[in-house]
Amino acid sequence: MENLIRFGEKFFDELEIAVYRSRDVSASVELNEISMASTRGGAVTVIRGINEGRLGLAIIDSDDPERIKEAIEQAAKMAKLNGRDEKWVSLPEPGAYKEAPKPNYGLKEASPDILVEKLVRGIKLAREKDPNAVVAGGEGGVSWEKRHVVNSHGVDVFQEGGAAFFFLELVGRKGDVVTPGIFDFDARRDLNLDVDGVVDRAVQRVRWAYNVEKSRNEEVPIILGPWAIAGLLSYTLLPAFSGERLVKETTPLAGKVGEKIASEVLTIYDDPFHPLSLEPTVADGEGVPTRKNVLIENGTFRGFVWDNYWAKVNGTESTGNGKRDLKSGGIGIDFHNVVIENGKRSLEDLIAEIDRGYFVDGFQGAHSSNPDNGNFAVTANPAFLIEDGEVKGASVFLVAGNVYELLNRASEITREQTVMPFMTTMTTPFIKFENVKIAGK
Amino acid sequence: MENLIRFGEKFFDELEIAVYRSRDVSASVELNEISMASTRGGAVTVIRGINEGRLGLAIIDSDDPERIKEAIEQAAKMAKLNGRDEKWVSLPEPGAYKEAPKPNYGLKEASPDILVEKLVRGIKLAREKDPNAVVAGGEGGVSWEKRHVVNSHGVDVFQEGGAAFFFLELVGRKGDVVTPGIFDFDARRDLNLDVDGVVDRAVQRVRWAYNVEKSRNEEVPIILGPWAIAGLLSYTLLPAFSGERLVKETTPLAGKVGEKIASEVLTIYDDPFHPLSLEPTVADGEGVPTRKNVLIENGTFRGFVWDNYWAKVNGTESTGNGKRDLKSGGIGIDFHNVVIENGKRSLEDLIAEIDRGYFVDGFQGAHSSNPDNGNFAVTANPAFLIEDGEVKGASVFLVAGNVYELLNRASEITREQTVMPFMTTMTTPFIKFENVKIAGK
Repeated sequence: MENLIRFGEKFFDELEIAVYRSRDVSASVELNEISMASTRGGAVTVIRGINEGRLGLAIIDSDDPERIKEAIEQAAKMAKLNGRDEKWVSLPEPGAYKEAPKPNYGLKEASPDILVEKLVRGIKLAREKDPNAVVAGGEGGVSWEKRHVVNSHGVDVFQEGGAAFFFLELVGRKGDVVTPGIFDFDARRDLNLDVDGVVDRAVQRVRWAYNVEKSRNEEVPIILGPWAIAGLLSYTLLPAFSGERLVKETTPLAGKVGEKIASEVLTIYDDPFHPLSLEPTVADGEGVPTRKNVLIENGTFRGFVWDNYWAKVNGTESTGNGKRDLKSGGIGIDFHNVVIENGKRSLEDLIAEIDRGYFVDGFQGAHSSNPDNGNFAVTANPAFLIEDGEVKGASVFLVAGNVYELLNRASEITREQTVMPFMTTMTTPFIKFENVKIAGK
Repeated sequence: MENLIRFGEKFFDELEIAVYRSRDVSASVELNEISMASTRGGAVTVIRGINEGRLGLAIIDSDDPERIKEAIEQAAKMAKLNGRDEKWVSLPEPGAYKEAPKPNYGLKEASPDILVEKLVRGIKLAREKDPNAVVAGGEGGVSWEKRHVVNSHGVDVFQEGGAAFFFLELVGRKGDVVTPGIFDFDARRDLNLDVDGVVDRAVQRVRWAYNVEKSRNEEVPIILGPWAIAGLLSYTLLPAFSGERLVKETTPLAGKVGEKIASEVLTIYDDPFHPLSLEPTVADGEGVPTRKNVLIENGTFRGFVWDNYWAKVNGTESTGNGKRDLKSGGIGIDFHNVVIENGKRSLEDLIAEIDRGYFVDGFQGAHSSNPDNGNFAVTANPAFLIEDGEVKGASVFLVAGNVYELLNRASEITREQTVMPFMTTMTTPFIKFENVKIAGK
């Protein structure tokens, strides 16, 4: 890599070479049968070079040095055609990196067989526990990635590691009732995926859903589950922490560092080193050391997250949140593992205290939310009516509101905490909110 | 491949091996600058084997015979764990294939440089023609694919070919007005991408959009452009032609062959051999000969389209519409090139005759439509108010309705016809609809 950097310096004032080599095995379920087993992989190299403030960025599907040289030349041609980016400062310098946790090499050469077995076991268990349930879909996967980021300022970080995930979607049919699709999942840095737990939790909710309860317009306590929380916050709250949005004036959190923006029960941080993190990375996509960044501490907003570019534009420092999009090659501000700190009591305890309210497993339509102000309008489905401390059946309703108003209504957080490997990776408990206005459907 | 089929027959009653090798070059624009140039490619092999009605499906990222053998064994293990599919009949037999048009080998080894040049030219032209316009985004791409499908019944079809596309997104800023993103594009089987035409059309609409006109609740003629049509029909109408949906009773077109379902001005067919088609394929994803399939002829519904599996379940024949999803490996019913037959007069002529109405360039929210009944609720944006035969400015409004009701309101089709390379590939003119109810916003 050293040679390639020297080669690139003939064309550029500064340059970065990032090489990714990945291997992904997976298996899928469709309607109680295994529908597919796959093994895929490959290499991608991204060249980012800057000459007199002009950017060149080239991507190739190879880690072969000769092809990397060609890509450097490609990026150099492109930089010549571009205008100067007056805001450009520089690529990052090396930093003080933590010691990376040892990767679990057992995942490196995993066979799809293991996933097929786990899925077959999940299907069998689910059908035994509920003969009316169909495993409509599901997937198991193991990914392994090697990443090597070097730049002409001396950054040189190599990391590798992997994670495994497993999910099932159950649909129950009983009499005239067809339940909504009920998802449950597990994700971790080893192969001890909790198939039994996934099935137990999903079957429980399918059972609840055999009874359908009408919802109505009311103001009630609601408990949101990890999937609902991750869906809603990914589109309404998390973008607001981006330093790029601070510079571009598209975050409602501008000027609010140190202010209370949520209920005191809420503490949220981004932490690649959390014990449940799927990717305990020591450096971000441009080689800046990662760290735990507190976003909200007991309801108080603590600060924005930054990549190298926008931090320097703003005269501050990267928080190690530069993540590379392998499709566009570009670096954007994003999270490693957003953690919502858990509480003391169990979900069961919280449900037992509700006279009338709802437990929301998932939201539909969160992607249409507006992160500029936090407004959202979503359909709660799957969702469940709670009466007299017990789940009575499935309901569908609408919630339209503002995420900051909602966060101020949080009253308790559960002890249970789940890693959501989809969308932004989040480690989240269940959260109870008081007096939420809902529209029956 | 013959050897691999023989090898697979040790494990399976029938099997299919489909090998795909692709190469994609592309370049992108962000905010007036070239943001990326990429060259990617690779091979994918999908094994589909059936033993005593049990399916095994394996995917690998290679076309190496040894790895294909491993994948066959993987698929065989999986088939053993699956239940019998009682509906399974057989893989297809070879058919009578048309002669494939000669591919344009000029695209096979295209360099991203050509695309960078075209994008640079597009940016320059756009900014010359409208100094208030920013090229917010854009992309040029050339793809080449080799496909080889063989099965144990003697199907053995090799095809290769490529296509190129180009699009720009312009945003204009004048005084307090920021226009919506205005897209225009070209796609074809050679590199003569019409950069000037893309810029001219986009700049014209940006100019229109500098004037903002309020919309109101009214019943008016609207003209839909190719992007709006492709978006709306992909989610509301096209799924209804699927034979799988006929079998599963989820299409409103069941029992309606020969009935009038749209205005007489509308003729719609799927035709991979249309002169503008980007992929003139002679066989579908499972090696069944393709053909022109008429869907709607002068307003009358002519029939469903089928892949091998659902056709045999239904006791009919595949129409050559089995398309492979390289992510899941599965075959699904889909289209090659949906053509809406064009008319005689120009878009200009149609606009000139409208006293008050709208031209809709794009719809938002079409993906939430219900293909089971054709109901939709979309936001028209970008859209333009027409008064006294002239475009007056940009408007945003809502249209909620049913696609079949809308299709019955079609009154005229333009001569101009455009290939839409996104979502379902469609070749579509502009269509005028009468007395459409809209809700002002």
